[in-house]
Amino acid sequence: MIVAQGIQVNELSSGQYDSIYNLFSLAIASLGFTGLFLVISQGRVLKRYRNALIVSATVCFIATYHYFRIFNNFKDSYQTSAQGGRGTFTLTNVEFNEAYRYVDWFLTVPLLLVETIAVLALAKAVQKSLLFKLVPASALMIALGYPGELATDTATRLIWGTLSTIPFLYLLYVLFVELSKSLDRQPPEVRGTVSRLRIMLVGLWGVYPIAYLFPVFGFDGSNAFVARQVGYSLADIFAKAAFGLVIFKIARMKSEVEDPAFAEQEDTEVVHAAR
Amino acid sequence: MIVAQGIQVNELSSGQYDSIYNLFSLAIASLGFTGLFLVISQGRVLKRYRNALIVSATVCFIATYHYFRIFNNFKDSYQTSAQGGRGTFTLTNVEFNEAYRYVDWFLTVPLLLVETIAVLALAKAVQKSLLFKLVPASALMIALGYPGELATDTATRLIWGTLSTIPFLYLLYVLFVELSKSLDRQPPEVRGTVSRLRIMLVGLWGVYPIAYLFPVFGFDGSNAFVARQVGYSLADIFAKAAFGLVIFKIARMKSEVEDPAFAEQEDTEVVHAAR
Repeated sequence: MIVAQGIQVNELSSGQYDSIYNLFSLAIASLGFTGLFLVISQGRVLKRYRNALIVSATVCFIATYHYFRIFNNFKDSYQTSAQGGRGTFTLTNVEFNEAYRYVDWFLTVPLLLVETIAVLALAKAVQKSLLFKLVPASALMIALGYPGELATDTATRLIWGTLSTIPFLYLLYVLFVELSKSLDRQPPEVRGTVSRLRIMLVGLWGVYPIAYLFPVFGFDGSNAFVARQVGYSLADIFAKAAFGLVIFKIARMKSEVEDPAFAEQEDTEVVHAAR
Repeated sequence: MIVAQGIQVNELSSGQYDSIYNLFSLAIASLGFTGLFLVISQGRVLKRYRNALIVSATVCFIATYHYFRIFNNFKDSYQTSAQGGRGTFTLTNVEFNEAYRYVDWFLTVPLLLVETIAVLALAKAVQKSLLFKLVPASALMIALGYPGELATDTATRLIWGTLSTIPFLYLLYVLFVELSKSLDRQPPEVRGTVSRLRIMLVGLWGVYPIAYLFPVFGFDGSNAFVARQVGYSLADIFAKAAFGLVIFKIARMKSEVEDPAFAEQEDTEVVHAAR
């Protein structure tokens, strides 16, 4: 068995290397251009929903920056001397720095909460009290997870993981309850989408603890490393880029319902049919 | 014959190297600045056609990112020790990663379908049912093509290529039929252009399977490699940048027909005539 030094492993096969390499690049492309799409689409939603789009774009850009760092870091940490890169990749003198992810989450998770609450357009006092509960819980969750991530033994990983799970469950509980409460306040046309947003939050955020636990159940050495990188990266793509597009969809639908000037497609049909 | 390891070859002449190198740079320039043109031209089309432009620009930017990666990757993968670069280029320890193209297509082909349907301004229900058919077919087409691309033997390449062709033909058939059906709904002034868009789609997308098959018919070793890179790159430039400009042209023409405030040329004529 390959001995893990903290989160890094000493060797990766070329197939394992390629999978991680291509996934990191996919993360950069999907996060970066979702961010850009959200910025240039601002004019398509009512002013009151633009903050949700802007914060959502910011989340995507912060994550893009970190995936650039992670991608370059990975290329420096693992190298092969085999022609065409078709051999075993070994760990160089450059640490593979998992802290990038934690710094990213530390910045983006509170912002994801802000964008979710912004798109619901709740009363200002409700928004404030919600963020007052959720943001400290998210900071605590990430701070408690990091020491466990660096651990080489299962016991330490499990202890910190369990501690981190307490604010995580509190956060999901508050969000789920508040999103459910807000359903009545949403226009009937978007209730289905907001309801799915609830499920999406719980489902997608649930991938992170699973990826965290890969080294604990079954996977070991380089397999645990690959599984964790794949899990975290896919979770980031869905929880930030895909989630941002759902936020955009809700903002678009609410804009259409609340101001006929924002209805794009239906109008056209009428215009042509009238000819 | 030079033995291919997956899709890479061990040697390229300086002429072959230069052709690929310059074409990759051409792809970056044409895709990147078409994307920029589409973003800054948004104000010249009606609101209802801006989504088509924004998605079209996003496609160009995603492809630009991937051509940057492909370009840098190619420079790292093939190097020569000859002064002035006028010697044989040999494969280094860096893999030439054809997966960039597949990641790119995985993201851009569904978006190309979205922009095509957006510019037609069909009823929402029709748009939804079309994308529901087309997007899964496009994902299947790309996923089935990739194993064949990596194959070193002709049989494997042909089997996956054939499997990939099934969703490809379905996709082209549905698009062609729907574009033809939508002709009646378009203003008479743009019918000719939408009709040409139909032919353009089938013609341009047809270049990809031909480039895929270069290693099968006749070409071998470095010639197959060069032909495939040239074929894919030219196809990307036409199917994304040139196609995006046709989408823009249709959006412009429809905007002019549907709202006199968007007529640019006629107005100018009148102003000058009145002087």
